[in-house]
Parts: sequence; C-alpha cells; structure tokens
Amino acid sequence: MSLPALLDRLADIHNLDQAGALLNWDQRTYMPPRGSEPRAKQLATLAKLSHDLLVSQQTQDLLAAAEAAATHFPSGSKERAMLRVARRNMDKATKVPTALVVALTETASRAEDVWQQARADNNYPAFAPWLDKLLDLKRQYAAAVMPNVPIFDALLDDFEEGMTAAELNPLFDTLKAHGIPLVAAIQSRGKKISSDILTQHFDPAAQQAFCAFILKECGFPFDRGRLDTSVHPFCTNFSQNDVRITTRWEPNWLPGALFGCLHEMGHAFYELNIAPEYEATPLASGVSLGVHESQSRLWENLVGRSREFWIRYYTHLQKAFPSQLSAIPLDAFYESINRVAPSFIRVEADEVTYNLHIILRYEMEQALLNRQLSVTDAPAAWNEKLHKYLGITPPTDREGILQDVHWAFGGFGYFPTYSLGNVLAAQLFQSASHDLPTLRTDIQSGHFAGLLDWLRIHVHQHGKRYQPRALVLQATGKPLSTDAYLNYLTDKFGAIYRL
Amino acid sequence: MSLPALLDRLADIHNLDQAGALLNWDQRTYMPPRGSEPRAKQLATLAKLSHDLLVSQQTQDLLAAAEAAATHFPSGSKERAMLRVARRNMDKATKVPTALVVALTETASRAEDVWQQARADNNYPAFAPWLDKLLDLKRQYAAAVMPNVPIFDALLDDFEEGMTAAELNPLFDTLKAHGIPLVAAIQSRGKKISSDILTQHFDPAAQQAFCAFILKECGFPFDRGRLDTSVHPFCTNFSQNDVRITTRWEPNWLPGALFGCLHEMGHAFYELNIAPEYEATPLASGVSLGVHESQSRLWENLVGRSREFWIRYYTHLQKAFPSQLSAIPLDAFYESINRVAPSFIRVEADEVTYNLHIILRYEMEQALLNRQLSVTDAPAAWNEKLHKYLGITPPTDREGILQDVHWAFGGFGYFPTYSLGNVLAAQLFQSASHDLPTLRTDIQSGHFAGLLDWLRIHVHQHGKRYQPRALVLQATGKPLSTDAYLNYLTDKFGAIYRL
Repeated sequence: MSLPALLDRLADIHNLDQAGALLNWDQRTYMPPRGSEPRAKQLATLAKLSHDLLVSQQTQDLLAAAEAAATHFPSGSKERAMLRVARRNMDKATKVPTALVVALTETASRAEDVWQQARADNNYPAFAPWLDKLLDLKRQYAAAVMPNVPIFDALLDDFEEGMTAAELNPLFDTLKAHGIPLVAAIQSRGKKISSDILTQHFDPAAQQAFCAFILKECGFPFDRGRLDTSVHPFCTNFSQNDVRITTRWEPNWLPGALFGCLHEMGHAFYELNIAPEYEATPLASGVSLGVHESQSRLWENLVGRSREFWIRYYTHLQKAFPSQLSAIPLDAFYESINRVAPSFIRVEADEVTYNLHIILRYEMEQALLNRQLSVTDAPAAWNEKLHKYLGITPPTDREGILQDVHWAFGGFGYFPTYSLGNVLAAQLFQSASHDLPTLRTDIQSGHFAGLLDWLRIHVHQHGKRYQPRALVLQATGKPLSTDAYLNYLTDKFGAIYRL
Repeated sequence: MSLPALLDRLADIHNLDQAGALLNWDQRTYMPPRGSEPRAKQLATLAKLSHDLLVSQQTQDLLAAAEAAATHFPSGSKERAMLRVARRNMDKATKVPTALVVALTETASRAEDVWQQARADNNYPAFAPWLDKLLDLKRQYAAAVMPNVPIFDALLDDFEEGMTAAELNPLFDTLKAHGIPLVAAIQSRGKKISSDILTQHFDPAAQQAFCAFILKECGFPFDRGRLDTSVHPFCTNFSQNDVRITTRWEPNWLPGALFGCLHEMGHAFYELNIAPEYEATPLASGVSLGVHESQSRLWENLVGRSREFWIRYYTHLQKAFPSQLSAIPLDAFYESINRVAPSFIRVEADEVTYNLHIILRYEMEQALLNRQLSVTDAPAAWNEKLHKYLGITPPTDREGILQDVHWAFGGFGYFPTYSLGNVLAAQLFQSASHDLPTLRTDIQSGHFAGLLDWLRIHVHQHGKRYQPRALVLQATGKPLSTDAYLNYLTDKFGAIYRL
C-alpha cells in the first residue's frame, strides 16, 4: 500500500495548488481592487506550504517506498507513469537551493513591475539590469536542476519535457526557410485585404452572447466550466469538472474576444477530458505547454479561422451584428480574419508571420543565456532580426524587445512552445482528418463531437501519462514534423492570396 | 522576538483559512454545478492542513515561548490580547481528540443531507437518530473542551466567548415577559397591516440595481467589497480589503433582498473596519456571533426599517418600481415592512415575534442536551411551546422542528446569538444616538458617515481585542441589558399599532 499513501500526500499538495489557482482566477476576474496585497500573501502561503509539503522528508520517504515497490506494476502502466512524474517534480523541487528559489521569485516579481513601467515609458535601460539579473539566476537554476545539459535545454524542459534545442533547430530552420519567402510572396502579390470590417464598433455584451453561443455549439460544457471577463485571456482549472476560461471584450476589435474564446476553449477541452481516474494524481493535467498550445491553436485557427466554420456560423454572426456585417459577404469576412501582414507585436500576428516572431525570441534567448549577446546590445539585435525576417523595424523598444512579459518573469525557454503548438495542431488535425473523412463537412454542419472525441481519445485523456514525444508518435503515427503545418499554410494562404 | 515568530506561523494558518473561505464563496456563487465533489476535497485538505499546523508541536512551542516572554507587554495591550486569543484557539483545537473531531465533521455532514431530505419529505423520524447522534457527540465535545462547566455553556462559548446560560436566562425571561403580551396586544388591537404591497412582482435586475445604490449610499466601499448572488445570503471576507456579501433576488418578495443586503452589509462593515494592524493576526475578525449580529441587525432594522430611512429613500424605490409603488404612500410602505404577525418560520419573523422563536430553541436545546427531553418527544414539545408563545401550531414538522439547518450541522448554542444581536443593536444605537444628537435627521438626509464612524471607533476597530462583555461595557458604558431594546420595540410598534 505504498503507492496509495504517496498519492494521498500528493493529492493534498495538488489541492493546495488548485486552491491557489482559484485565488489567482478570482484576483483576475472578481476581486475588488484593494484586495490584492493580502491576496498576494495568501498565495505566497499556499505556495510555500505546497513546496514544504513536497520536499518534506516524509514525502520523500513515501516516494522512495513507492518506487521500491514499483516492480509490482507493469512497465508502461499508469502507476509507473505516476511515479515517473512524481519523481520529476520532486527532483525539480529539491535540486534547487531554497535561497535560489526565493531569489528567483522575488527578482521576477520586482522585475515584472519594473518591466511594466519600462514598457509604459519606452525605457529599456531601466529594465536591462533586471533582465541581466534574471538571466544570471536562470543560468544558476539550469546548472542546479539539470547540470549536464545546455542551459537552454534545462530551462525548456520545465515547459516541454524532453525537448532540446538540437531537436528544435532543424524544425525552426524549416519554418524560417518556408515562412520568410511565403511572407514575401504574399507581400509582392499585391492583394490588399483590409481589416476595416473587424475594427467597427461591436457591442461587448453582444460579443459575449455570441461567444457563449459558439462555445455551446462546439461542446463546451457549462455545467463543468465558465466564461468570464479579465484583462488578459486565460484558461485555468480547479478540477476536471471545473475548468474556466476568460477573455476581454474589445469594442473595436472583433477577433480579440472571438478567437480568444476559441483559443482558451481548446485549452479547456484538454483539461476537461483527462481520464477521471487521474484526478488529483501527478497525471492530472496537460503534458506540456506545446501540446496544450496545439489544442488551443487547433480550435482557434484550424477550426475557428476555417472557411467551413464560417459557412456555418457567419449568418449567426451577421444576425448578432446586423448593422456592421449584413452588407459584408462571407468571403470578405473570411479573408479579413486571415489577413497576412508583417507587424511588430507577436500577439497580434497572423498565422504566417507568427512563427517568425517566435524564432526571433528563440534565437535571442539562446544568445543571451550563452553570453553571445549582451543585454545592452539586445534591442539592436531584436530590431535587426525583425527586419531580416519581416522587413520592418520597430519604431521604439515598446513595439520591440519590451513587448512581452515572459522575460520579465524569467520565462526563458517558454516561447518555442507556441510554435510547437502551431506545428502539432496541424499534424493532429491531419491525422484526425484521416480518421474522420467527413471532418470538413462536419465543421460546416456544426458537428464537432467527432473531432472532440478524436482529440479526447488520442490526446486529452492521457494527461501526463506519456511524455510529449511518445504522445505525438502514438496520436499521429509519426514524430513531430513540420510537413502537415507547411502544407496547411501553403494551401490556405495560397488560396486566399492566389499565389 | 518570540511573538513575531508566532504571528508569522498564525498568519500562515489564517491565510489557509482565508483561502478556504474563498473556495466556499466561489462554491456558493460562481462554481459550475459539477465542480462540487473535488471542491469538497480541496476544502477538506485546507481544513486538515490548517488544523495540523495549529496543533503541531512547533506551533505549540512558539505559543509557549511567546507566552513566557509576554511580561514585556503591558496588561491590556494588543499583544496580550493576541496571545489570549491564540491560546484559546490552541486549547480548543488540542483538547478535543482527533477521533471526535472527525466523527463530528462526518456526522454533521451526513446529518445535513439527511435533514435536507427529511425536511423535504416532512419526515422527522428519519432525522431523529441523527439528531440523537449529534447531541451525543456534542456532549462529548463539551466535556472535552470545557469539562468544568454545564454542557450548554461549553457549546455556547464557541460562538459567544464567556457567555453562559446563567447570564442568558434573566435576559431571555425579560424578553419573553415583554414579548408575549406585546404580541397579544398587537393581535387584539385588530389593526390589519397587509403585506400585499411587498408580494407584487419586482424585477430581480431592478432589485439588484436598487440594492447596489443603497449600499453605496450607506458607504459600502465597492473597491474593497462585492455584492453577488447566492441561494442563501451571507457575508464573508478574505481580508480587511476584500469583504463580500451575497443575497438572493426573490421576484415576489421585495424585503428578502432589500433587508438581506442591509443585514449582510452590517456584517461587512464590521470586518471592513477592523484595525489594519490586526490583519492576519488572531484579532483579525469580529469578536463573537452576537456582536456580529448586532451590526447586521442595527443596519437591517434600526436603520433600514426606520421611518427616517424611507423618508429619504422611498421616492428612489418608487422610481425603481413605479408600477408597483407609485400609488402607495410612504406610511403604507413603512407599515408593511414592519408588520407584526405570529408565523411558523423564524427567518421570516418580524422584529417582535423573532425572539420568541429563539427562546423556544434555546429552551429546547438545553432540555435535549441535559436529557430532560428526548429526541422522540421533541416535535411535540416544539409545537406546544410555539402555541404557548405565539398562539399558533405548525401544521407539519417542516414548519416546526425541521425548519432550521443549525441542529443538523451540530450548531447547538448558536441560536441565542441572534437575540443577543437584537438586544445589543438597540443598546449600541441608543449610545450612538446619545453621542450623535442629529443621528435621526442624519439618516433622514442619507448621511451615514457619523454612525459608521461611531461603530468603527466603539466596536469594529477592536476586532477580537476585547472579550464581548468588556467590549459592550466600553462601547455603551453599561453591561448588556434589554432596556434599550424593549423601549425600542415598545416605541416603534406602539406607534405603528397605536397601542
């Protein structure tokens, strides 16, 4: 009975973390403004107790005893997987000295404030010393947690287990070799697609009603989830039966909330469909950020930005916004939501240019961590790269190196998971299309149950049971590859831009 | 530095409990229906960890060390008060055997389910064995926690520190001796006041808007609090800067939400105005249920059901509900919200009959705990008492002994705090009126800052620093007495019913 005793203890830790997740959700949705200072202390207490409980001698003994008895369980069993993930979490938690954890948390928290101000003031030099500190602390962290691998790989592993720069490099090279000429071809083709349709005034309450309708249509279970409002869209969950998404309602930018909801819904489906027996165990969540992002991108782009989807739902959207859309034909709407144009800001980028933004960050992070690039020279390097990849130069650092929060919280190694998500989304959609020959007409008819079930069976239900690499192989029959994704981009945007 | 170390530890425990409070609030307001089972487990984990941390040897040592060093602090200082409350909490937590705590929690949880079904089915015999079990467990609890006092006093002490039946008896005798003839006099006077005005259809959204307006008028700080919707109204807080109230919007009963909001607002003001330096310390909450209830009753009844209040706000209410109220004069409205009539259900009772409902429960609880009354005979005893005090007999146990949840969760000793609240509300209001000669005209002008400040200075700010008895003496210059309350009832209802 050593595994059940371990799982009981891990469930307590899990429950503490889920309570913290609710405190975070509440802070971003309903908490009155002045509640934030005590809330930060409550979150700190929960995080501290969770960490203390995990690294306690008692939990370490429970884990060791369960591992010693693990020969009872067949190789590949869920029990072995639980022990593998528990060991991984334990090692990550115990290998890093407490002083370093504290320094990272405190520095990241202060750096994020500094970054916010620096971005507002377009003052990169104010942020630079904090970026330097964080890089240094993260180098120490990497050395502590995975001393025998390159720094970047150690950091990446926190977000994408088992992934390495050596595996990413050829993949990103291919994306770059395909992306740069595709953008250029679209630019030189001269076809102008306007986004004016999307920048009209769209009443937020009507947006909210329409998004709730779309979520229901796609199968989002409102008895196990919610849709709320927050400044930054996110998805969080407190159990498999309580998964919540948020978005913001921009009155003059329809795609923000609409595709934001579909994106977060993709994340939500993953957490909603993990096998119930994994609840509160080490397997009870999505396996990596990349695989998670594949789910959000699949619903946002491959479903939500498809012509089939809007053949079904455009008349509904027109009814929701008659004065804005009744005179606009479906084709014009479809093109406007798929408009390609080089831009400065990653989160506003289209499907074609998006990965070039990621590759820029990926290359810079490695250069910064490996001391091939100094913090002082980083803004110029950023601008040079953006010009090389997209042909444009940010007018200020606010539209350049200061735009993203990730580095300010020490999230080095995080960005690649966005592109991994894009690539994997296409590969999964291709496999699903193969198994479900009517998939495109199903979408056109508003039938999503087949796709959702396919994703549940091949991805969602497994939680963290298989490592990302094994999961991809099992779900699609091949290793991760850019083939499906490049075909998707070429076909879709070739048609739109008549290349 | 032994006190700071203790306070750090107690703040962790406090933060765990506040996180639990947020989980509870969310469960009652926004949680999707199917989230409840994992939520219960998360709450159980938080409660267990909080209890374990409190009774741990380390916390006991910290407390003992801080007490040993307490001679540094003057008698009556806030530090001494913190140690007194911490010792009280520690003793209550450690004196009760863990097996008994578990038995009580589990039995109460199951008994509440049984009670809910028994009430729905009007089936007291189904609930009786559970009531018996709970009485037995509570007798054991009393013997463990305060072995040298009567059972009832030990239970009462959990809700009202230092209060005893010996002190309550004369107080309740006076209330009974005054209340029974007052009800009879009102009945025999023959003046009919109708509640038809209040049972018209009132749009819930309009009720909500009006209640939010009233809360703002009274000074409820929406940057430090919220108003939400739940099945049962309540007030909770996660810090002094995050105090939330809820109510339900009954479409055919205006007073429900309206006075429910004012009631919960009174509770909220207490928690909002505790001295900031007490945040997360043992002093960081209202001192007892009775004193808390005095705050809710004061705003609900002495302010909210006063003629002065409606001289100010009735035209606003008429504007919010023109078709329902524009033809109804202020006097008729005022009388309808103060209508006196014997009724079966405590929570719907008017100010005059309310305490007789409490006294009935108070007398029965003591008889049950002392084995002078059997669980089998309890329904008949209930009905007999109600007939004696109010001249009516419940048609079924659903309108009798099965109506309240308190006994089903083991809350014996809880009911008296409602009447203590009524009595103390009047005594505090009398003192405030003495210090603020313009209080009645202030209310009539919608100026509540003076009253709120008086309550903050004399009651709220102190948190748990003084025991209830000392607080009352300090705030009003005399011990708790029914004088002010009986005068208030006689004056108000004498005028309404022209006695």
